[in-house]
Amino acid sequence: MSMQSYYLGSGFEPGKPLQGGCVAQVVASKAPGFAEGEVVSGMLPWSSHQIVEADAQGLIVGQLLKHVYGCKVIGSAGSNDKVALLHELGFDAAFNYHTTPKEQALKEAAPDGIDIYWENVGGPVLETVIEMCRPHARIVACGMISQYDLPDEEKYGVKNLFHVVTKRIKMQGMVVGDYYAELGKEFATTMGKYVTEGKVKAVEHVTEGIENAGKAWVEMMAGGNTGKAVVKVAAEDPFPVKKE
Amino acid sequence: MSMQSYYLGSGFEPGKPLQGGCVAQVVASKAPGFAEGEVVSGMLPWSSHQIVEADAQGLIVGQLLKHVYGCKVIGSAGSNDKVALLHELGFDAAFNYHTTPKEQALKEAAPDGIDIYWENVGGPVLETVIEMCRPHARIVACGMISQYDLPDEEKYGVKNLFHVVTKRIKMQGMVVGDYYAELGKEFATTMGKYVTEGKVKAVEHVTEGIENAGKAWVEMMAGGNTGKAVVKVAAEDPFPVKKE
Repeated sequence: MSMQSYYLGSGFEPGKPLQGGCVAQVVASKAPGFAEGEVVSGMLPWSSHQIVEADAQGLIVGQLLKHVYGCKVIGSAGSNDKVALLHELGFDAAFNYHTTPKEQALKEAAPDGIDIYWENVGGPVLETVIEMCRPHARIVACGMISQYDLPDEEKYGVKNLFHVVTKRIKMQGMVVGDYYAELGKEFATTMGKYVTEGKVKAVEHVTEGIENAGKAWVEMMAGGNTGKAVVKVAAEDPFPVKKE
Repeated sequence: MSMQSYYLGSGFEPGKPLQGGCVAQVVASKAPGFAEGEVVSGMLPWSSHQIVEADAQGLIVGQLLKHVYGCKVIGSAGSNDKVALLHELGFDAAFNYHTTPKEQALKEAAPDGIDIYWENVGGPVLETVIEMCRPHARIVACGMISQYDLPDEEKYGVKNLFHVVTKRIKMQGMVVGDYYAELGKEFATTMGKYVTEGKVKAVEHVTEGIENAGKAWVEMMAGGNTGKAVVKVAAEDPFPVKKE
């Protein structure tokens, strides 16, 4: 059971199970195209039996950019353990944003400026990156976790958006669910290949038991996870699929 | 002599003439492709003899969107005269941002939200528009005039950029000079056709005499012009082109 899509709002209805990215196994089916025992994935309710997923966004994006597209990759993280993990995964530079001033760390790591920013932080980090963007930089805006909990009046005001004009920056909001239908299969195939080849390593932070899902969520939002936050609902499948 | 490209910085060198969008006439030429008497245009120094241009951005963009692309178009302006002009040019709605609260005016004019925002204002107007953007809205960022004069610490902080993610907004900085070489000719031809057909009306605010260029500039930055701010350097060409 994957901790994600916590910001879209529209999918959460009181009294109904939460929705999230899931990998599930079909235990019974009357639908054509879904056979017993088959493994399926998608946005499913948090009510299945045993679910695993691995796609911690920053780690995956950084590894893809580094090991598939050949970019120089800089990571920021909230602890020294996470910084060590980023180095281990091949990031060119990584810094702990709790202990290193971000302007200094970014300027040292990217003295010539930034061409691509995968945005999942927001606030002052976004502002610093915009300041450092090179002409025609691209900002892939997939989240702004520093801003989620804040009431509107306390949200951070980004003051240097004029650089978007002078530097011809493209900032594009993207939500993964928009691309499931068209690109989901291709993603699974291609990413499977990269994982098999060792270009991309999947890192999971597993919490045991659906009763701890709420705790796991809160910890993730506070940065307590390293890698993809996953809840393992049961140690063994309580409804084993009948084999022919 | 056109008042523009005042924000790019790179083109302004002490002791050299300012650069700007110009239409000029060739009075002497040793270059192939430039014949005496020919009219040329481009980014030229403010030192020619008689220069005219007409492309007040907001008026042109609004008229194109309305009369060529069939969009519903809302304009904001700083005086009642300008608002009247926008109505006259066929804008669906227009309001005076000095006298009407922008949230109220925009919500009345666009109750279903905004799909395209041509951004030349910045600050709280940008913030209000982002709040009202519909999913997949596009922000064409060509300027942020409200922010130019302010020291960094006084610039307006835009607090609701997270909507860029959830609404999948695309914000793209664009500077006209990037497209002169590739599209300038096509633009002149197509726009000429629209002007001839009456789809787009050129509106000019003419200041006489290069000695008033500084004053014209300051007035434009303070909103004193209606339409394209132009400086007419001389009433008649002091160097008439020799006719064969």
